Amino acid sequence: MQSEAGAAGAVHGGLAGGALTITFTASQGLLLMIPNMYKIAGEMLPAVFHVSARAIASHALSIFGDHQDVMACRQTGFSMLAEASVQEVMDLALVAHMSAIESSLPFVSFFDGFRTSHEIQKIEVIDYEDMKPLINMEKIAAFRKRAMNPEHPDVRGTAQNPDIYFQGREATNVYYQAVPGIVQECMDKVGALTGRKYKLFDYVGAVDAERVVVSMGSSCETLEETVNYLVSKGEKVGLIKVRLFRPLSAAHLLAALPKTAKTVTVLDRTKEPGALGDPLYLDVCTAFVEAGQKARLLAGRYGLGSKEFTPAMSKAVYDNMAAKTPKNHFTVGIDDDVTGSSLAISGPLDSTPKGTVQCKFWGLGSDGTVGANKQAIKIIGDNTDMYAQGYFAYDSKKSGGITISHLRFGNSPIQSTYLVTAADYVACHNPSYVHLYDLLDGIKDGGTFVLNCAWTAKDMDQMLPASMRRTMAEKKLKFYTVDAVKIAGSVGLGGRINMIMQTAFFKLSEVIPFDQAVELLKQGIQTAYGKKGEKIVNMNVAAVEKGMDAIVEVPVPEAWKKLTDETGATTNEPAYVHNVMRPVLAQKGDKLPVSAFSLDGTMPVATSKFEKRGVAIKVPEWIADNCIQCNQCAFVCPHSALRPVLSTKDELAGAPKSFATLETKGKGMEGLNFRIQVNTLDCLGCGNCADICPAKEKALVMQPIATQTGVQVPNFEFSET
Amino acid sequence: MQSEAGAAGAVHGGLAGGALTITFTASQGLLLMIPNMYKIAGEMLPAVFHVSARAIASHALSIFGDHQDVMACRQTGFSMLAEASVQEVMDLALVAHMSAIESSLPFVSFFDGFRTSHEIQKIEVIDYEDMKPLINMEKIAAFRKRAMNPEHPDVRGTAQNPDIYFQGREATNVYYQAVPGIVQECMDKVGALTGRKYKLFDYVGAVDAERVVVSMGSSCETLEETVNYLVSKGEKVGLIKVRLFRPLSAAHLLAALPKTAKTVTVLDRTKEPGALGDPLYLDVCTAFVEAGQKARLLAGRYGLGSKEFTPAMSKAVYDNMAAKTPKNHFTVGIDDDVTGSSLAISGPLDSTPKGTVQCKFWGLGSDGTVGANKQAIKIIGDNTDMYAQGYFAYDSKKSGGITISHLRFGNSPIQSTYLVTAADYVACHNPSYVHLYDLLDGIKDGGTFVLNCAWTAKDMDQMLPASMRRTMAEKKLKFYTVDAVKIAGSVGLGGRINMIMQTAFFKLSEVIPFDQAVELLKQGIQTAYGKKGEKIVNMNVAAVEKGMDAIVEVPVPEAWKKLTDETGATTNEPAYVHNVMRPVLAQKGDKLPVSAFSLDGTMPVATSKFEKRGVAIKVPEWIADNCIQCNQCAFVCPHSALRPVLSTKDELAGAPKSFATLETKGKGMEGLNFRIQVNTLDCLGCGNCADICPAKEKALVMQPIATQTGVQVPNFEFSET
Repeated sequence: MQSEAGAAGAVHGGLAGGALTITFTASQGLLLMIPNMYKIAGEMLPAVFHVSARAIASHALSIFGDHQDVMACRQTGFSMLAEASVQEVMDLALVAHMSAIESSLPFVSFFDGFRTSHEIQKIEVIDYEDMKPLINMEKIAAFRKRAMNPEHPDVRGTAQNPDIYFQGREATNVYYQAVPGIVQECMDKVGALTGRKYKLFDYVGAVDAERVVVSMGSSCETLEETVNYLVSKGEKVGLIKVRLFRPLSAAHLLAALPKTAKTVTVLDRTKEPGALGDPLYLDVCTAFVEAGQKARLLAGRYGLGSKEFTPAMSKAVYDNMAAKTPKNHFTVGIDDDVTGSSLAISGPLDSTPKGTVQCKFWGLGSDGTVGANKQAIKIIGDNTDMYAQGYFAYDSKKSGGITISHLRFGNSPIQSTYLVTAADYVACHNPSYVHLYDLLDGIKDGGTFVLNCAWTAKDMDQMLPASMRRTMAEKKLKFYTVDAVKIAGSVGLGGRINMIMQTAFFKLSEVIPFDQAVELLKQGIQTAYGKKGEKIVNMNVAAVEKGMDAIVEVPVPEAWKKLTDETGATTNEPAYVHNVMRPVLAQKGDKLPVSAFSLDGTMPVATSKFEKRGVAIKVPEWIADNCIQCNQCAFVCPHSALRPVLSTKDELAGAPKSFATLETKGKGMEGLNFRIQVNTLDCLGCGNCADICPAKEKALVMQPIATQTGVQVPNFEFSET
Repeated sequence: MQSEAGAAGAVHGGLAGGALTITFTASQGLLLMIPNMYKIAGEMLPAVFHVSARAIASHALSIFGDHQDVMACRQTGFSMLAEASVQEVMDLALVAHMSAIESSLPFVSFFDGFRTSHEIQKIEVIDYEDMKPLINMEKIAAFRKRAMNPEHPDVRGTAQNPDIYFQGREATNVYYQAVPGIVQECMDKVGALTGRKYKLFDYVGAVDAERVVVSMGSSCETLEETVNYLVSKGEKVGLIKVRLFRPLSAAHLLAALPKTAKTVTVLDRTKEPGALGDPLYLDVCTAFVEAGQKARLLAGRYGLGSKEFTPAMSKAVYDNMAAKTPKNHFTVGIDDDVTGSSLAISGPLDSTPKGTVQCKFWGLGSDGTVGANKQAIKIIGDNTDMYAQGYFAYDSKKSGGITISHLRFGNSPIQSTYLVTAADYVACHNPSYVHLYDLLDGIKDGGTFVLNCAWTAKDMDQMLPASMRRTMAEKKLKFYTVDAVKIAGSVGLGGRINMIMQTAFFKLSEVIPFDQAVELLKQGIQTAYGKKGEKIVNMNVAAVEKGMDAIVEVPVPEAWKKLTDETGATTNEPAYVHNVMRPVLAQKGDKLPVSAFSLDGTMPVATSKFEKRGVAIKVPEWIADNCIQCNQCAFVCPHSALRPVLSTKDELAGAPKSFATLETKGKGMEGLNFRIQVNTLDCLGCGNCADICPAKEKALVMQPIATQTGVQVPNFEFSET
């Protein structure tokens, strides 16, 4: 297909041949489809492009979500429908197909990349059988009739000269004028089926709102949650959710705006450097000018590259409208200390409906945490009336990197399209993380913290950083440990601790009755592993049963309240490593201000040497006596975490006795000593070295690391905005 | 390079390597560069893309000019400078380079495809030596210093996660804020050098204008010409020419607007179906909202795919603003009989400055007409103080198609960026055209018409259509013939009639003294053909000398005024051929209304059989007695204009005596008669058949076609708008 450019050509060809053809794409891929999009629209072909809207590579690549890609297509003649939640993707994707067929024009159906595309939500699925009667089959027949066909050929793709091209370009205007009405009709039909009603522009909030936000995509969920919260506090605020972005119907937009509106802020999730404002804002300005609408207009930009957009940020947007001199063309979600565009955020705001349980799980990429959490959502979602949501944040290391799972459960619909900032339950599946990350950031008073480790209560003073212990005491947390690695080993599951930690979650979170949870977990094991045989099933069942008994409550001494932070080790690290890399590695990159970054996206080289993670649960121990000096272990290690080293007698003169070496084998090696040196801080515990070792008695054995410490987080100073 | 996508990658790589790299592109090619444009801007690389802005293929391809392609790039972070004329391309392309280097940001420097890119204008060229001191060499050094270099490597093209991408994206805001100031400074520096002053937004017109147009690109020239005309009639009108489109400085835009402005019309040369308006209009709306500017705003679209934009259309835009109920979101230049968006045009308006000589030449593709006209412009431009302009319209047949050359000469600068609509001089280089085209459309009263033909005065009643003769009489035209084909043959130039027709032009147009013109023509011949030897030079000199004597003035009888049109032959042609194809072939496609075209750009097949052009000056004559029946002539004919035919005796029973045939040679052919049948209406006169003929005595001989008639133009009815 030669990239998405070729794929778009295939879509065009399919449509021209009379097949209802669609595609799924995003970001750079969507950009490559732009030329074909003009053609598809120009030829009135009812394609639907489903786009998980994403950022575009500029100073740097971002694979994450914003509207830069879809906004780069808004001029192509495609109609564009925006969805704010997973349920809306279900409902409005159908509307997009119905409308495309009905209007004989192509649609982009888009939703926020990652935030919506990768969120797990319990939704109501519309069956294909229910969709069928909603589709205008006569229109499909007409579409097929005008397809390319050797039985009744026609000419397409002509080259037109100045005399006639303009006229042809204007020939379809009436079809575009009809789209808003068609889309509303299709929304109504889907609404009649599902009970979920949509309008081209949906207003929520106070009927007498004075401050109104206009936005699009997943931000609308967070904004609505915040509006509900603010309205409950008596604030006159509201929100217009843009569904049909193209063709933009100014009449419908203005009709959605309460007459009481004094100030309107338009939020854009894209950036067009050099424009007077971003696209949605320009549209609203134009609609206001044409209608003589007098409300004051402000513009804001948020959420580029999946930058978090939280209730606190939403509130800042509403607060800004109430300010004496509101900021215009502001940013929200960052600290812009260069041009001062950013809004100040006044602390976190927990606007999730009461009764929602919020959980956060810190895992190591490929340790099973994410999979286990997905299963937990499935168990709760499928077997109760509760709503469930999961979102999984990864770093870019994938396997061996960090994973943070954000789960919510509750009896009210979950509109929190942002990471968990106020957790009831935090679990850490890797003990080294206590030094690497601020695990308890945002945990609620009285919340629960579960740590997978082999440490006992009396180890804690030594093993946990002072700040963590102080937080536990100050917030009166319930603190539990599970030695999941030990249990997993004992039941034969190796390093796979997910079933044990999942059991602990169900026991301690009490989202559903624990007995029911255990029953469902066991059913789930049967479903997942039944085909792999009784042995595997039994090992997992044993893990559940041993897991529930292995939970140890650790007392949190009052004295921890008074702890002061350890002084961070002073280092001679380069400024970039200290000022940018360390905060990013510590998951504090959100706090870095604009001035921290180079203008053109360049970064220094050779920085990975400063990143010593120490996250392996098991590391290899070299048993010198067994070693045949073949070096295969060093060859297979994916992270160069073990290396063969030769030393002279002189070099070894001062070595401690425990520093084992061997006489080196081989010609010309006389007088040199051999050693396999393991760097446990670089090791990720994969065990490839031990697996490959060909010695009769293994010279490399994976051992649990008892006093794993990671590398301590240096103290960063962030200026408060 | 794998298309322009690869070229853009090479540009990006060149820049990253520290080379000031630029590219020249347009249309679909520019679209393929969009992904790299984001990267180039994000990495602050001072590229300049010179774009001859062109249409984008939608319902049909158009290779012609409008702003669809550049508008599809306005979100990439490139700054964008628009040029309205050839001189401005010279001046502002330099400004673009200076500004890119100064601002460390990339620029698109664009001008209208074809209208400006293919216009020949006499301009003042800035020498490279004069440019040099204008360039900030320190900035170039700094740019090179931050280039990729193995001696001091850095990392580029990182993948950034949600924590930091947004901040990095905002890091360059101050650089964009600085661009308008930088561009104005660079304009001032170039202005100081050349005396030609530019502003970010240039206002022309009445100081107390009430009706103001905002536009961009070549339309500004025509608009300015029209404004000058209307202001001279006392109308309070004005024009803002947009130079710096991105970053758009609202402050500078508003400052350019006279305080007296009551209504402002924003013209866009692009179409974004489904948007509230086209891009420049959205910008102006936003600028107005933010500044509380109260003037009424209107939007119009014009000139898609190089659709003509004339003073009459410009006037319609100003008239619309004065109307009681002005049209908004109008089109101008077409007849939109579907949605009624188009403005009515009240007849042609000749606003070119007095003393400008306007000329129109009808030629056959590759007959030398265009080359000769370019030479005429060069002769006049180089050797006098006069301004000169040339624009060449072609159909899509290229060689063998139609060419129409539009030339203007005068003592005032020529801002007429539209085809000649009021000609002082019309020359037709192909006699068949008298039936095919409305050659005298728009010729001025008392104008000159020169026809290359072998006809004498007494042939004219028979050879010329009644409408043409009536026009000549009514407008009191001076009518001349030149038998250029005969002269060209006699001096050994074959079918190359360009030198003869050029001589006729200089003699009859009197743009410069004829003696001087002859001298310069001869010098030009020496320069052009000197290397090819004395013989070629002498043939051309002979053509000039014989040409001047061969001009025959033909009397135009008063009686021609009373002629009525011949009735068009009634045909059974398909509706599409009659209603669309015939007008397009007759160069009347501009008059076809929107409703004439299919919605999706499809057209019927097998229509070329209806196009019998009969434009060859010489056609082959088959000399049966010489023919060896090898069929090579039919094999080489590019237009299948001659075919071997076999007939039975029965079939030939009724044939006239002059219908020559031969006994067919070869086994099994007994009883059949052979003939090479020439279709002179399909022949383009290339002579390939005669060249290839292997017979001792040629069986095919090219003969001038004396009574060539073409195919008559049917009568079209266009509703008046």
